[in-house]
Amino acid sequence: MTTTVGRFISFEGTEGVGKTTAIEGLCQRLQAAGIDYVRTREPGGSPFAERLRAILLDPATDINDDTELLLLFAARADHLQQVILPALQRGAWVICDRFTDSTIAYQGYGRADGDQRVLAKIDSLIAQFISPLPELTLWLDLPVLEGMARAGKRSKADRFEQQATAFFTRVHHGFSMLAMQHPERIERIDANGSSDEVGGRIWQTVQARFNLG
Amino acid sequence: MTTTVGRFISFEGTEGVGKTTAIEGLCQRLQAAGIDYVRTREPGGSPFAERLRAILLDPATDINDDTELLLLFAARADHLQQVILPALQRGAWVICDRFTDSTIAYQGYGRADGDQRVLAKIDSLIAQFISPLPELTLWLDLPVLEGMARAGKRSKADRFEQQATAFFTRVHHGFSMLAMQHPERIERIDANGSSDEVGGRIWQTVQARFNLG
Repeated sequence: MTTTVGRFISFEGTEGVGKTTAIEGLCQRLQAAGIDYVRTREPGGSPFAERLRAILLDPATDINDDTELLLLFAARADHLQQVILPALQRGAWVICDRFTDSTIAYQGYGRADGDQRVLAKIDSLIAQFISPLPELTLWLDLPVLEGMARAGKRSKADRFEQQATAFFTRVHHGFSMLAMQHPERIERIDANGSSDEVGGRIWQTVQARFNLG
Repeated sequence: MTTTVGRFISFEGTEGVGKTTAIEGLCQRLQAAGIDYVRTREPGGSPFAERLRAILLDPATDINDDTELLLLFAARADHLQQVILPALQRGAWVICDRFTDSTIAYQGYGRADGDQRVLAKIDSLIAQFISPLPELTLWLDLPVLEGMARAGKRSKADRFEQQATAFFTRVHHGFSMLAMQHPERIERIDANGSSDEVGGRIWQTVQARFNLG
């Protein structure tokens, strides 16, 4: 594995849990502490990966699940080499909005309902192509219906909403499974409360993990 | 694995061995024998995979080896689902110009010089994402320098030519290794001689393998 000196932190969670606000809060605190950091996101994060992101998110793109998975990892491999690794090697922290856990939760649990063959495909892609993984993953956790309400997804109580609820319930289950499987890396953050409260919990966790202040 | 009834044949080989002519010859014979077939190629072969091919072959595309490998397999997964599997399922034969062996020979041996980590990455992508593999692979074999001369690559005896010779020698070694590892699937075809002679050898091999007239 390549030697790195910066810290690699990912944020994860279902829709409406407040990831963007939480990331902004952490970045402000890092800046105040004089810590050099790079804020980035997935899918995307590098020019070529953003080009693939545009293809992946284009409603006109009609591709099968395997092709989508391989494109996601092609984008991730570029993002890692172009942005994440150079930042970590020069000693900067990397704060990434979603990383490998989102692929497992959304593609593996949300879409494939925990199908072992799909999870095995994702695991083998991670094992062969993704290093380093984040040292710390902050999973912002909120009940699914509350997150959907915050994200404005519950405007109509129709069949689509029921399907969306079932989908995000599976995604949430995926994050719960991951947190159980990787307790050394994934910290569950209670995402209830004001942004100050949630931000305080996150900063406490980061300080404790990396012996800050 | 999905049940298929058509036959899946790939052609492989280094530059200048006469793949295009050989494929045309086989397709003419299949047509004369009343066999429904689909002629296709890699990278590409389906609309979305051809779009990825254009990105992969664009000299302005600056990507690392992992990203290239994952894009190649994203294209292959689309090609498989959109073109190869539907053809085989309706009973047509699929004649494909390059498939997985080219990735092993070019990326694994030509570029990475047989690096076991790179070969393991390619093998895991094949195992997780590519099914079925060709039943029969026709490896057109010719001494490297002769193939390069035919392909017009030896016009200048400069440093580039020496590098190209070394590269294609590694690719050729890759195909030799594959033929040794998969004797049940890969048939070495002597690519010396006229196109009629080579075409005759290929047809004989195909007839014998599939019990044709």
